[in-house]
Amino acid sequence: MVPNGLFSIERFIDDLARFSETSDGVTRFPLTEQAKHARQYIADTMEQIGLTVFTDGVGNIHGQLSGSDLSNHKPLVLGSHFDSVRHAGKYDGVAGIACALAAVDMLLSQGLSPSFPIEILALEGEEGCEFKSPLIGSKALIGQLSLGELKQVMNSKGQSYYQQCEASALNPASLPQPYYRSDSIAGFIELHIEQAATLDRESIPVGIVTAISALQRIRIEFHGQANHAGATPMNQRSDALVTAAEFIHQVPTMLAEYGSPAATITCGHIECTPNRANVIPGFAALEIDIRDTSQPYIERLSNGVKHTVEQLGESPGLTTVFSILGTGDAVTMDESLRQQLTQSCQRLGIPHMDIHSGAGHDAGVFAQITPTAMVFVPSVDGYSHNPKEHTPLQFLEQGTSVLLDFLHHY
Amino acid sequence: MVPNGLFSIERFIDDLARFSETSDGVTRFPLTEQAKHARQYIADTMEQIGLTVFTDGVGNIHGQLSGSDLSNHKPLVLGSHFDSVRHAGKYDGVAGIACALAAVDMLLSQGLSPSFPIEILALEGEEGCEFKSPLIGSKALIGQLSLGELKQVMNSKGQSYYQQCEASALNPASLPQPYYRSDSIAGFIELHIEQAATLDRESIPVGIVTAISALQRIRIEFHGQANHAGATPMNQRSDALVTAAEFIHQVPTMLAEYGSPAATITCGHIECTPNRANVIPGFAALEIDIRDTSQPYIERLSNGVKHTVEQLGESPGLTTVFSILGTGDAVTMDESLRQQLTQSCQRLGIPHMDIHSGAGHDAGVFAQITPTAMVFVPSVDGYSHNPKEHTPLQFLEQGTSVLLDFLHHY
Repeated sequence: MVPNGLFSIERFIDDLARFSETSDGVTRFPLTEQAKHARQYIADTMEQIGLTVFTDGVGNIHGQLSGSDLSNHKPLVLGSHFDSVRHAGKYDGVAGIACALAAVDMLLSQGLSPSFPIEILALEGEEGCEFKSPLIGSKALIGQLSLGELKQVMNSKGQSYYQQCEASALNPASLPQPYYRSDSIAGFIELHIEQAATLDRESIPVGIVTAISALQRIRIEFHGQANHAGATPMNQRSDALVTAAEFIHQVPTMLAEYGSPAATITCGHIECTPNRANVIPGFAALEIDIRDTSQPYIERLSNGVKHTVEQLGESPGLTTVFSILGTGDAVTMDESLRQQLTQSCQRLGIPHMDIHSGAGHDAGVFAQITPTAMVFVPSVDGYSHNPKEHTPLQFLEQGTSVLLDFLHHY
Repeated sequence: MVPNGLFSIERFIDDLARFSETSDGVTRFPLTEQAKHARQYIADTMEQIGLTVFTDGVGNIHGQLSGSDLSNHKPLVLGSHFDSVRHAGKYDGVAGIACALAAVDMLLSQGLSPSFPIEILALEGEEGCEFKSPLIGSKALIGQLSLGELKQVMNSKGQSYYQQCEASALNPASLPQPYYRSDSIAGFIELHIEQAATLDRESIPVGIVTAISALQRIRIEFHGQANHAGATPMNQRSDALVTAAEFIHQVPTMLAEYGSPAATITCGHIECTPNRANVIPGFAALEIDIRDTSQPYIERLSNGVKHTVEQLGESPGLTTVFSILGTGDAVTMDESLRQQLTQSCQRLGIPHMDIHSGAGHDAGVFAQITPTAMVFVPSVDGYSHNPKEHTPLQFLEQGTSVLLDFLHHY
């Protein structure tokens, strides 16, 4: 299917990729010079398509289309984010904005006007990479981040999100109340690249997301005894790093025993003291990310991890500390919207499957106030947060067709 | 046995411990203000005992005693180092200087004058902690470090050892030739704390060292694929840190298969990139220290480690790099000196055992030019490079008795 209007998915994605701090992949942190250029480009594109555009106080761009039924003020919102991690690909987030714009562009170029209002949303600050808090744009829109909190979220230079909004000529104080409430929005649909290889391996172009994982961030400390690498025989050691490695080694066992098939345990952060080749490590710490598909499941997995840590702490000369740094609740997608998206796939003859999202998304925030659904398109070889990230145009066009069909029948 | 002279082992060790940058353990890096005070204190003590004292160009202190046979110019040298690691104990190195001084003090207080010259040596720069190169004082003394190399060895502030000698009013240029050659020294004896728990656990006060381990410093890199912790299912990962942990997990197997009973493998240094809890590590590196008792053994162990690394590199999406950063040859102690020290123990009725040194020592440097032996005394619970380091006075006195008896019968 080729778009009928003026809008080109490919050009939009390629053009946005140029607003980057780095040439090795896309680096577009929130409220930077690059973000400012991207905002202007997105707003201009929305206007060309025929939307009414405004940028809110925290940097989200809203492209609005009134419905033919003027008494209906509750928009159906479609969108995703336009910020990126460091050295990202060009599809993460942007693909969802591009496909939503393409669908609306086709709708309008077909001379069709839906009865309900539509809003295309380009969200800022989703990644939580430069500002350590993720999902800032969506949380601010539903009133989950106060102005006080926006003043406390800092970037790596110690500047607050609030400050940087003002520095970008935005007016963060204009968001003291939630912009969206349960009674002011009809639903939220986010198309996103899968960021894993499941669709690609199955050669299925569309995934209908069932739920977003619950997660916990956990810190585990291993306290042993630093000692001389040469002088200390192997049987006289209390090596904290060996114990941390043993924990990592037991990850598959923990998943088999305490996790659902979709559960993940990632040991992404490690510390070691004194971290010198010729000193037996006296201290090691891991910060791990665990995910599973529901609240009861994540709690079972977390308890299993804790149990394993306690067992490792029973080794002579070793003590361990387990602490939960943060949690994210599981989010179930709206059953009715999922069915409608599935029916669109069926009508169009597009192969599709139900799929689980291990990653968090703005959709998880909107799901707290409104019926929400997500459409995944394939990531080749599962690359994401990586310059190698790629989704072929044909899949983006198929995803757009699903959104368009969904809008026709909504 | 109580010393007969004026010298007190306990007071010497306690007094020297006060010349420290830190109150939590002893921190006395080479050529610092603390080292300067320690040099003055050691020189004063040597003079009080009756030795002729001078400090050489790199900060070693020499206390000389002529023998009654004035035609014999080849001194028997006894000593150890007086520098420390950060937050060290007070016995490492200093115990060897104290016991050698105590033995000579008793010899002189007994009115005995050996036929051969004796030299007590307090060595600088053994640890290689602040200046990254170890054994500087002893290597300079046997001509193994050129003036050019002394100018290249840097401390953490980027100052060279040579510069810091000059800043300490020493004259490093006075050491252009080896101070000791094979034909100008009769032998070298170093008493040192064991730094492990073997003697303590066996309740044996004296160890006669058979050999110092060969060692290799090895860097192992694990290159995987960074990816999103939430989005990437467990079976789609190439996790570099998981592979590094698997290597550490296999250390006991490698030792059993490729090492002698005294072999050690220490994984003391780890790196992880990007080292964020919610990103699958794309890169990890270990710097490890491997030791075994002889050259053929260390080569077998190193090849075994390399083989293991190569096998881990065969996992899908993983590559590994193995590189040897540095090596230290095995050093065998002089058979005749070992026998004489053993006979001294037997004469005195002091329980003793042959013992291997996993740690490197100045004795390993001297062994390259002269017959060399080492006496170990117990470290309680094996603590070393740690403020908890402790050797009870009775063991230091027994070690001194062995040195004294050895001098009587040499």
